[in-house]
Amino acid sequence: MSVLIVGSTALDSIKTPKAENPRLLGGSASHAAVAASFFSPVKLVGVVGDDFPKKYLELYRRHGIDLEGLQIKAGKTFHWSGEYEVNMNNRRTLLTELGVFETFTPVLPAAHQRTPFVLLANIAPALQHHVLDQSRGAKFVVADTMDLWLNIAFNDLVKLLKRIDGFVLNDSEAHQLTKEDNVFAALKKIHKLGPKYVIIKKGSHGSILSGPRGFFLCPAYPLHKVVDPTGAGDSFVGGMMGYLATARGSIDDNLRRAMIHGSVTASFCCEGFGLNRTTKLKRADIDRRVKELEKLTRF
Amino acid sequence: MSVLIVGSTALDSIKTPKAENPRLLGGSASHAAVAASFFSPVKLVGVVGDDFPKKYLELYRRHGIDLEGLQIKAGKTFHWSGEYEVNMNNRRTLLTELGVFETFTPVLPAAHQRTPFVLLANIAPALQHHVLDQSRGAKFVVADTMDLWLNIAFNDLVKLLKRIDGFVLNDSEAHQLTKEDNVFAALKKIHKLGPKYVIIKKGSHGSILSGPRGFFLCPAYPLHKVVDPTGAGDSFVGGMMGYLATARGSIDDNLRRAMIHGSVTASFCCEGFGLNRTTKLKRADIDRRVKELEKLTRF
Repeated sequence: MSVLIVGSTALDSIKTPKAENPRLLGGSASHAAVAASFFSPVKLVGVVGDDFPKKYLELYRRHGIDLEGLQIKAGKTFHWSGEYEVNMNNRRTLLTELGVFETFTPVLPAAHQRTPFVLLANIAPALQHHVLDQSRGAKFVVADTMDLWLNIAFNDLVKLLKRIDGFVLNDSEAHQLTKEDNVFAALKKIHKLGPKYVIIKKGSHGSILSGPRGFFLCPAYPLHKVVDPTGAGDSFVGGMMGYLATARGSIDDNLRRAMIHGSVTASFCCEGFGLNRTTKLKRADIDRRVKELEKLTRF
Repeated sequence: MSVLIVGSTALDSIKTPKAENPRLLGGSASHAAVAASFFSPVKLVGVVGDDFPKKYLELYRRHGIDLEGLQIKAGKTFHWSGEYEVNMNNRRTLLTELGVFETFTPVLPAAHQRTPFVLLANIAPALQHHVLDQSRGAKFVVADTMDLWLNIAFNDLVKLLKRIDGFVLNDSEAHQLTKEDNVFAALKKIHKLGPKYVIIKKGSHGSILSGPRGFFLCPAYPLHKVVDPTGAGDSFVGGMMGYLATARGSIDDNLRRAMIHGSVTASFCCEGFGLNRTTKLKRADIDRRVKELEKLTRF
């Protein structure tokens, strides 16, 4: 089965203490779609301007990503620019030019509306709602978010939580949403808001799943060097959804290994600027790290 | 085989946002010794004043802890007082009265000098050296430390690293020691200072072992509520050494499971003030959580 992914499609200009890379392919949907493409067919829903480089459209296509739902509008592509500190954890936004993204309304082509796996990657909750309204064939819906929406679209987000199966957020967002310092207490509170599955991402410390079969402590692959963590969370959830869409058996049977595959895909994402490393991957590279993670965690 | 444990033996007065507990049994050696006692015989080396409550001596004895190396001196027992913030991670020291600890010189009784497993729990590196000078029969030596010694006894500590098999420290101390933000890069640098085995503790995020068989990502047991984390790191390393001392086979064969048993013992430590919860444990309680951790991490 295939995965429908909606989110931002952007150009990212990223500064780190060691390098500067202008106008890389970025955005939550780009990272998630490329990550998912190693496991399943992907349908991308987003918007870009008429300045969007052709090479990036070709990049999507090389990964077999269906672009019927990608709108190309007159105007500028969403452009984000950010700078990372030496520790590569803290970053600050230097510039945000919304461009055509400002008036984006996702429209699902008829074929997309029946896609069983739907990933609402990080984007305004109102747009996530709008996609769900059109996703008549959705069987398993997961949403990601960011602190911005907790600040400016809290009610929309809380309403969304009642409509989705799985919710993915990072530990500081979980704290912001629930006011709980303890991550397991936060998970309990988030379930009460709706989702059957909640995943809290903790960056290099891995992630935690809470679902009908209890918790799963998902490790992060050990990285000796992080080049650019932008998009790692999107790659994680994208890889996870791609894996789920083609795995046989129930969600509960597959979710742990899906998270591991997402975690490994995210580890590669961190090893290059933008999508530079991820786009060079082969499925065998991912499978190798999955096996390594098995060895690194067995006792 | 038994474990020799040297470190601080103290009275801890601990304030949290919810409660205040004066003069609990504390100190690195107390926590490590009680944790190790669930797995192996323990010989404790430390010092207390003549104000040390008899009930705490009885507590040690109930855990089968050999007190021949515990000096009882005229004067006051080391007294530490600290306060935790709401998130239970940050704490500040309110008071430190060294008392008889100020002039402590560990002296190993003849029988102690042949103990094969030696844990140099958190204490001044000069005292850790002094114990090693007397530990003629030591086969496997592990040292713990704290940020204080990195600040005021750096050279002593670096010299110690050449004399020990395993070194345990937390992530911020690893950063302080190596100036590396990346924990895996830090591990590599610490090995170059001497120890064959390096373990970095990450609190609720678990711990990482680096040794001849590569890395092991050791999880922390999921706790919904932390009552008092004081001594958790000491319990971790104490439980680990106790497990190692009685496990059959090589250190390399046993170290992962030893860390898991230490991790679980530390989880119980966090669930009560001081040693209140740990002292009520049975070995079966620990084994149950070890099995749970297996289930929580398999994929």
